[in-house]
Amino acid sequence: MKLITDINDQRNLSRLWDIGTKVGFVPTMGYLHEGHLSLVAKSNSECDVTVVSIFVNPAQFGPKEDLSSYPRDLERDLAMLERYKVDYVFFPTTGMMYPAGYQSWIMVQGISDVLCGASRPGHFKGVATVVAKLVNLVNPDFMYMGEKDYQQVVVLETMLRDLNMHTRIVRCPIVREKDGLALSSRNKYLDKHDRKKALCLSQALRLAKDLYSKGETDPNLLTIAMTTVILKAGGKIDYIAFVNRDTLAPVKKVNRTTRVLLAVYIGKTRLIDNTALAI
Amino acid sequence: MKLITDINDQRNLSRLWDIGTKVGFVPTMGYLHEGHLSLVAKSNSECDVTVVSIFVNPAQFGPKEDLSSYPRDLERDLAMLERYKVDYVFFPTTGMMYPAGYQSWIMVQGISDVLCGASRPGHFKGVATVVAKLVNLVNPDFMYMGEKDYQQVVVLETMLRDLNMHTRIVRCPIVREKDGLALSSRNKYLDKHDRKKALCLSQALRLAKDLYSKGETDPNLLTIAMTTVILKAGGKIDYIAFVNRDTLAPVKKVNRTTRVLLAVYIGKTRLIDNTALAI
Repeated sequence: MKLITDINDQRNLSRLWDIGTKVGFVPTMGYLHEGHLSLVAKSNSECDVTVVSIFVNPAQFGPKEDLSSYPRDLERDLAMLERYKVDYVFFPTTGMMYPAGYQSWIMVQGISDVLCGASRPGHFKGVATVVAKLVNLVNPDFMYMGEKDYQQVVVLETMLRDLNMHTRIVRCPIVREKDGLALSSRNKYLDKHDRKKALCLSQALRLAKDLYSKGETDPNLLTIAMTTVILKAGGKIDYIAFVNRDTLAPVKKVNRTTRVLLAVYIGKTRLIDNTALAI
Repeated sequence: MKLITDINDQRNLSRLWDIGTKVGFVPTMGYLHEGHLSLVAKSNSECDVTVVSIFVNPAQFGPKEDLSSYPRDLERDLAMLERYKVDYVFFPTTGMMYPAGYQSWIMVQGISDVLCGASRPGHFKGVATVVAKLVNLVNPDFMYMGEKDYQQVVVLETMLRDLNMHTRIVRCPIVREKDGLALSSRNKYLDKHDRKKALCLSQALRLAKDLYSKGETDPNLLTIAMTTVILKAGGKIDYIAFVNRDTLAPVKKVNRTTRVLLAVYIGKTRLIDNTALAI
């Protein structure tokens, strides 16, 4: 496993891979968990070379968000990736990614402004821009992303397609704790008490699936049922949304192409989760 | 010479070029003139493969601008490029470049909003986006651009650097008619009378150079002198600007790193021109 910290080294490396080399890429902000590692394992099994990036991207955090407290542990991350026999870890500095005078930004209009984008203005501009930069440096054939950040996946698929970038996203299922909590680096913020409360996200999603499987297709009624579960647990709802899985447009009637997404504050920690409704 | 109209064909082609193949790219909106051909000749002489694109990009025209009347003559363009032994001409359709639901845009903040960007809101967003798309499809090592669209060159250099794209711009000098008029596809709009008037742009630039060579370094005084030339000829000034050649920031005192840019209406036709002030 080789650690690359200079963006020029990363570029020179990726320019040398020939067309026959299948390159897989897993962009992360570090503080890795089994969710990230499932992406790494999939890339390893499908590609000749796997590159994992670790970069806590300041551009996707709002001024009042948790950039400074976002959990970091490079040594632990590297040890985990070493065990997975990752080929390259790309760990660029903020100064190299956003040098003085940096001024270019990518906007994916419409879908960047709803759901998490409405709660976090500028978030997806930061995500789209940094991923375009990383993709340009790593030059992968496939980028492995978890569906936990569902809107992010849709925004990035749109960007790659619109800007005619050749990289394709491989969507990977959400990895959960045994009790249902979706893995997230931000789960670290939860104390024992909040950790229990946080189950309400996956419980609310499961309830929606159950009700849908029994024939309920009204998003308003499903939302009320989910709201009850979350409020009872002490969560504060940012949004619950039943949307078309491709366009993220709200649906009036739930069907197989609907995805339900939610964001909930557990104490001060904002958590997200989602699920398909097809059975 | 091969004509490529399908963006997937263009991508498949460019993915096959190996690292040893030097690829030169000349993006154009067609209606080629000697200025374009000087870029083609330079690419031919420096690269193994030369790709010329012809695409009148709707995204860089404002709603009241000349998109529908912009001159087009594909047959003539292809004949010219054939004579220059260009390898590939990429001529995508608008529908393939901007399919229904297109929503991703690149903004180069700051320098996109001044000078021509101030007069043409959204213009450089359209330019940056289409060039990123073309570069992603053609995957060139070098992109040959004329300094006639000076601000465009600076915006695109900034975008390529910021987004970590590997393509480098090769700046090429402005090509002029014998009497000094900078070549432009829009010169076609000028009738005989306006064609004469249009000389005031290059005359004003030459005057600024002369006065600077004689010791005048005050941009205000130089602007007044230039203004006189242009008004006398019957031109209507959009802007005259003495700026730093890299940042496009206005300068208080002219020196070797200053560039003077201007935009002038001759009748209804908006023309631009510029020059370095170093002697």
